[in-house]
Formats: sequence, structure tokens, C-alpha cells
Amino acid sequence: MVAGTTAAGTTVGARHALAAALLPGLAAAALASVPVDAQTVRSAAEVVAAATDEEWRGLDPDNTVYFEMEGGRVVVELAPWAAPRHVEALRAIVRGGHYDGAPVVRSQDNYVAQWRVAPPAEGASLPGWLSDALAAEFTTSSGGLPFTPLPDPDVYAAEAGFTRGFPVGREPGSGTTWIAHCYGTVAVPRGNDPDAASPAGLYAVTGHAPRHLDRNATVVGRVVQGMEHLTTLPRGTGTLGFFETPEERPLIRSARMGSDLDPADRVAVEILRTDSESFQAWVLASRTRTEEWFVHPTGRIELCNVRIPVRAVP
Amino acid sequence: MVAGTTAAGTTVGARHALAAALLPGLAAAALASVPVDAQTVRSAAEVVAAATDEEWRGLDPDNTVYFEMEGGRVVVELAPWAAPRHVEALRAIVRGGHYDGAPVVRSQDNYVAQWRVAPPAEGASLPGWLSDALAAEFTTSSGGLPFTPLPDPDVYAAEAGFTRGFPVGREPGSGTTWIAHCYGTVAVPRGNDPDAASPAGLYAVTGHAPRHLDRNATVVGRVVQGMEHLTTLPRGTGTLGFFETPEERPLIRSARMGSDLDPADRVAVEILRTDSESFQAWVLASRTRTEEWFVHPTGRIELCNVRIPVRAVP
Repeated sequence: MVAGTTAAGTTVGARHALAAALLPGLAAAALASVPVDAQTVRSAAEVVAAATDEEWRGLDPDNTVYFEMEGGRVVVELAPWAAPRHVEALRAIVRGGHYDGAPVVRSQDNYVAQWRVAPPAEGASLPGWLSDALAAEFTTSSGGLPFTPLPDPDVYAAEAGFTRGFPVGREPGSGTTWIAHCYGTVAVPRGNDPDAASPAGLYAVTGHAPRHLDRNATVVGRVVQGMEHLTTLPRGTGTLGFFETPEERPLIRSARMGSDLDPADRVAVEILRTDSESFQAWVLASRTRTEEWFVHPTGRIELCNVRIPVRAVP
Repeated sequence: MVAGTTAAGTTVGARHALAAALLPGLAAAALASVPVDAQTVRSAAEVVAAATDEEWRGLDPDNTVYFEMEGGRVVVELAPWAAPRHVEALRAIVRGGHYDGAPVVRSQDNYVAQWRVAPPAEGASLPGWLSDALAAEFTTSSGGLPFTPLPDPDVYAAEAGFTRGFPVGREPGSGTTWIAHCYGTVAVPRGNDPDAASPAGLYAVTGHAPRHLDRNATVVGRVVQGMEHLTTLPRGTGTLGFFETPEERPLIRSARMGSDLDPADRVAVEILRTDSESFQAWVLASRTRTEEWFVHPTGRIELCNVRIPVRAVP
């Protein structure tokens, strides 16, 4: 078989402790050429098993949207720290029920699935505020943001790593941070005017990371569970994967803020904090593969290939 | 909308000629920090429209496998130059009809779809040669191979670029080339013994490029058309995306070598030669985005984000 990458429970050979302490404070570029001995890196399974309860965090229900699709539930964690205006508007749109019965209008293979609020009932119209044009939030100030650097360089960003559970690029010169367009990133489509977007439409990355969209669209969040309900949707046959007729469009049954759900109806998962030591060890384990299957342990990892560990609440 | 990346017909603003002549002969690293003025780069649409007939090539029918799935046809171009023994064995397995009615045994979201030859009829057994253990063909000698370097560095390989229509990594020290695990790459699964694989099983990359598999598995080809028939398959619910019961497994109706099909039944497509000047211009156009939509023209591209242009035979 092909060795797996996502499962915390991947069967792996036992190895010994690593020098996670190597990482903090070192710039990505500085570590890029430092070979790591595979024999000294803990396996991914060992790292996850050893993480302390304090290193895991729950989802903030006010920053979580549940999209209920025919195939199942798509859980999106929002990033108000990256795009406060868009996230605030999105919460209002969700709470207004406008994503209930909303159509997926586009499904382009190896690129994005895109959906938008439900059309108004016959004879009615959507509230005007739904299409309020928001100014771009393509980047945010790096000031005060936690940052766990990736120990490898990035093709697209001067610095790459993780902030508050999201893969990010950073530019030291401008002091800016942006969420990278990795698989599962959720952002706001727009026309040519960068300052006229509305989260009455959303897209999620369903293919190889289209990093050329970084700093060109406002990212509002990331799918933390249920990506398969977006990626298995039929593909649109029109230009850019748009569906050619309304009848072809898959529907989103409903969307709810986590905080509007009964706690028992929320997903019971925890996410490994990206500012934890165990996460840094996880990156190293993902980077240098100690499993017996690997002939070539790699010793490198690209930003969007780091899967952020999720576990069921113990 | 989100700007598209695949369509040759993407609407873009007109721009002027570029210095494609900058590229040949320069190592990837040397160009990595050379900014390209967006105003001087032709758009992707302009490049494809201007490519000469000699820059396009057809598919060699003896190096093309057609997998017929319920959803449609998956067309795989083989790379005998990279894995001669595995490709030869795969041709024999296809010609023996062993992929007719073959089950997809694994579909792991954001990773791979994996299939294997059909089980023998009741009371029968599969020919022994089907499971002949082949020695690894993880890399091949770079000697004599054409190579079009990518003008950006790669996280995983010392050099990255294109050889004979495939995205490749190269290591100058060992003089080796290998096909990269990009979206659509088709390779041979194996157990822990690197020299005991058989193309009686295959996998295709259906998610973000799992480059840690590079040099760890024998790549036999690449899907050039029909990826959506693999990516929209239901996901397996077992460990690593394996289907838990035989009934859940999608079936491949048949597999045929192109050369065993009536020419009228082959796909009528051409692929832009990766050793052509127009392909180099295409890479630059994909790298620096001149379309009005882009606020940030990017100016970088990662190996697996270069889509190799395909057109209908004119």
C-alpha cells in the first residue's frame, strides 16, 4: 500500500525522542539545509500520542460554521483575526438563514467548490446589506500574532508557518501575514474590484494548493472536518467548473453558527495547537519519515502538506 | 469569481511579448530571485494561441491506457523512459484483460485513489506472472533526458522542471531524475520491500501533491484527461481510505491500451511539448499573472501548480 499521512493512528516503527527544541526562534531559511537524522525523529503517531491535554484546543463555537450538505457536515473554523469584517458579515449572513438551501454554483476539478446564498423567494428580494461591498482583507499585520515557522523554505512566501491553527505566509518587510490557499482553505470570491467582496459567496480549495490566490482574496477560514463532502461533488461542465443549469447545482441544506447549535450537536473534536511543542514535533515527524516503508525519508515538507492533527474529544 | 487556472481560453488582458529566451540554460535557483515584470509577460491564453503546430504532440497509443469508469474515461499517459520494466508489465496486464472489472479498493480524501486487477473467477486463479516482484524504478538516470527547468526552487528536489511531458525532480549529484507526485501522477503501490512491486495495482494522486512519496514508489504515468472520474469517487471509510466491504468498491469497467483501440475511439487531444518555447512561456505566464483580477501577480510558481496544456486536435 501507499503509506498514509493523515491518520494519527498510522502504524509506524518506534523511534526515539527528537530535538523539537531546535525549532523555536530559528528562521525557516536557517533550518532549511540542516539535515535531520531520521533515527532521532519521533514518529507522527508517537508525537500525537504524547501530546498533553493542554496542547489540544476545542473549536470556538462562535468561530465555527456548520454547513449541512446532502453527503454530510462540512465544519469550517473561522479566522476573525485575519479578516474581522468579512467574518462578522459572514456570521450575520449565516444567522440570517441565507445559506439554508444555498446552491453550490461551481465545482472545478483540482481547484475550488464555490457556493452562494440562496436566491430570494418568488417576488421577494435579498436584504441589501447582504451584498455590501467589503474592503479587502487579503493580509493582516503580523504584529502580536503567534507564529510557528516551518523548517523549510516556501516557494510563494518569504516566511511560511502557522498562526492560530492556520497555514500562513509572512512578509517581514511589510510586516504582513496571510492565510495560505491550502487544501480546505475557505475564502470569498470577488470580481476585479479587490474592495467589493461579500461573504454572501464562498469558495473552498478542493485541489492542489492554488497559492497564486494568496493575497488576492480574503480568506475567512478553513475546513477542519468534512472536506470529502465538497470534493466528491460532481464537477461543473461549464467554463471554470460552473454548473450550466440551476438544476445541476448541489444544495447546502443549512448553515449554522456553532454557538447557535445545542452543544450536543456540535462536533466533539480537538485540534493540536500550532503553537505547541508537540505540533513542532509533528511537523518534524511529517517532514522526515521514520516508517519502515520509506526508502527515502524526504527530510523536507511543504507548507500545505502539513496536516494539522484533529482528535475526537477524549 | 475566483480566477481560473486551467482553461486555455481564460479571458485575460492583452499584454506584450516576453523574454522566454531568458529561461533556457539558466539553473532554477539562478532565476528564483529575478523579478519578472508582469507587463512584459504574455498571458497564458496568448501563449497557447500562439503555439505552433510543431509544439503540440499527440499521445503515443502504445503509451496510453484508457480506463473506462462508470463516470467516464480516465486517460493515462505512460512513461516507459522512467520505469521501463513496470510499464512493460502494465501493458501485459492491461492486454490480458486483468483490469476489466477491477475494483477501486481505496479512495482517501486529499491523497490517492488505488485500484487493482479483478479477482479471478470462482475456482480459477490469476496467472502467477501478474504478481512477479519487480525491482524498484524510483529514479532513472538523467543522462540524455531533455529537461526544462522551472524558474523557481522546489521544496523537495534540488532541481525541478519537466521531462517528456512530466513534472520531475532531479538530483545533480547522483545524476538522477524522478517523476514528481503531483496531482494525477499514477504509480505502483507496494509493501515495505521496495523491490517487490507489481503494476497489478496502481494508485493515482487525487489531492495536494504528496511529494514525500517521490523516490519511494515507481511512477508509471500521469492522468492527462478524466481525473474527475477518480476524484469524485466516494471516499473509503476504513483506515487510509480503504473501502471496508467489497460491495463499496467502485469498478473499472475495462482498461485498454490505446494501440488496441480503433483510432476513432482514442481521445483526440494534443499536449504542449514541455521542451517547446511556448511551454516555457506558459510557465512564465502561469507564474506571473497579468489578468486584471490579480492584485498580487505572484511571480512564483511551484512545480505541481504548472498545468500542462492540452487541446483538442485542431
